[in-house]
Amino acid sequence: MTLASSVLSGDRYSFARLLTQVENNSAEGRRALTELFPHTGNAHLIGVTGAPGTGKSSLVNQLALHYRKSEGRRVGIVAVDPSSPFSGGAVLGDRVRMRDLSGDPHVFIRSMASRGSLGGLAQATAGVVQVFDAAGFDVILIETVGAGQAEVDIARLAHTTLVVEAPGLGDDIQAIKAGILEIADILVINKADRPGVENTERALKSTLELAHPMQHIFRHHGQYAPVTLPQKADAEVWIPPILRSISTDGTGIAELATAIARHAEYLRSSGDWVARERSRLEAELDILIRAALVRRFHESLAPGEFERVIDRMVNRELSPWEAVSALMDRKAESA
Amino acid sequence: MTLASSVLSGDRYSFARLLTQVENNSAEGRRALTELFPHTGNAHLIGVTGAPGTGKSSLVNQLALHYRKSEGRRVGIVAVDPSSPFSGGAVLGDRVRMRDLSGDPHVFIRSMASRGSLGGLAQATAGVVQVFDAAGFDVILIETVGAGQAEVDIARLAHTTLVVEAPGLGDDIQAIKAGILEIADILVINKADRPGVENTERALKSTLELAHPMQHIFRHHGQYAPVTLPQKADAEVWIPPILRSISTDGTGIAELATAIARHAEYLRSSGDWVARERSRLEAELDILIRAALVRRFHESLAPGEFERVIDRMVNRELSPWEAVSALMDRKAESA
Repeated sequence: MTLASSVLSGDRYSFARLLTQVENNSAEGRRALTELFPHTGNAHLIGVTGAPGTGKSSLVNQLALHYRKSEGRRVGIVAVDPSSPFSGGAVLGDRVRMRDLSGDPHVFIRSMASRGSLGGLAQATAGVVQVFDAAGFDVILIETVGAGQAEVDIARLAHTTLVVEAPGLGDDIQAIKAGILEIADILVINKADRPGVENTERALKSTLELAHPMQHIFRHHGQYAPVTLPQKADAEVWIPPILRSISTDGTGIAELATAIARHAEYLRSSGDWVARERSRLEAELDILIRAALVRRFHESLAPGEFERVIDRMVNRELSPWEAVSALMDRKAESA
Repeated sequence: MTLASSVLSGDRYSFARLLTQVENNSAEGRRALTELFPHTGNAHLIGVTGAPGTGKSSLVNQLALHYRKSEGRRVGIVAVDPSSPFSGGAVLGDRVRMRDLSGDPHVFIRSMASRGSLGGLAQATAGVVQVFDAAGFDVILIETVGAGQAEVDIARLAHTTLVVEAPGLGDDIQAIKAGILEIADILVINKADRPGVENTERALKSTLELAHPMQHIFRHHGQYAPVTLPQKADAEVWIPPILRSISTDGTGIAELATAIARHAEYLRSSGDWVARERSRLEAELDILIRAALVRRFHESLAPGEFERVIDRMVNRELSPWEAVSALMDRKAESA
């Protein structure tokens, strides 16, 4: 029996072991991923991102509890922290979580800290999500800390992306970024019992209107304007809803789960599910190819060659662009 | 006269034009960068990073004013926003800045928003910094929004890295990340007039002690412990200082400039300046090589080949790992 087939048969020990193999990018892990791949594509992958201090982790916690208790679905949580090379914070986060979720065999939490390059983390995250999917988890929550490109890359792996904000962080010009809103399917204002919640909501609304000007015009005038007509009928355009939640007591969690379900429905009815699935897989392939290209490039170099080129750069004998040519053209010759 | 030599002769119009060429990665821009490269290596490159809401931009603003007024140095500011594909936020930030800094020909601000991949932004940032350096700016402040891998990559381009925190953001477990502290040469608690400044300082200190346990033991016991002896003498170990500032009124800015100067001195006296310069240039080369590898890979594919492979992945006929082999081995054959 292969590791992959043990995972498919529901063996929890094999499941945990495979996650480690995938994280370590071992040959066994890669083989198992290929064997499992035809069994993927059933889970709803939900990305959750937002700045530190927004209470993302406890929101994910509450969502997982809701899916378990109210809907009886199997839930996987992949908590990714690209900004930390240590796993300490993640472990602490897990301990906070475990109070509510421990003992339930249909919830599985995996924390992932960056142990090397960002590429490595995104690749490992994609692999771990595939294992959860093949193992029959219905909902997979992919949580990322922060709001940089790393999170955008990981968000590309999800069907539905939640962006979490909180009152009081929004008083800075830079706090609410249009770029992050672009990836949001649903906006959540967590810690909604704090002062300033109206300001945060107003700021999000006006940024949304900038990001979705056509839909805004549409709604505002209530009629079709031929020049600004989008490709799809009005009903099939998804405008990210703005929801409020208080993750410490569960307020707003059921409504959030409903909005997530509505988004999945929208994706299926509009045909966007297939498009998302395609761009998801394209993102996965892109991550793997970049890593393979860099690995093969370094393998193609003679020992010490890279260091000698850097030496010449330090001495200002070779510019960075000349260094690229020196290394890449040599590579082309030897190939 | 080439564009590069016009820049070296101090022509501001050529300078601004070259920045645009470098941002667009044009052939002319690359040629000029190679011509300018022997003239680089004189500036002190200072990275400034931190979460949204910490007041980073006004801190950078104040530092620039200080360098101009108190030290008469020429200052370049490169404001990088990897989380936004739009330049709107950056433009707004500039306008706020311009009130204090406009009209001074020895300050130049360049805002960079991500217009494509992260790789493209880091590459453009490295190039823009080289242009500032060759053009004779003494201090170059490289400001990045957020705290993800993108910021770490861009921090790798600097000699000295400031990490900015603010009170009130630190009540979340995840708010102060050990990974970000790892890249910090100097920690700044900005908005230090806000309540909670003591808590933030305490949290930073204890995280620092985790990150630098040896130095901590050292200091604590005040004697050499052979087993935990670092490679360098005590005086040559840099322990990131924690400073307070209020960027709205300039409090703490002179002290910050002093700490930055001390760090540069430390780098030079310990021999770490050369090591930093080397790893800086290695980071630049790495960025360029990754971009070139991906470009050449896509050029090597037959039209539609990539899309056909994705189609087979969507149909679960080909796993991501099989897709990599299919595309890369085909590439090796045709090479």
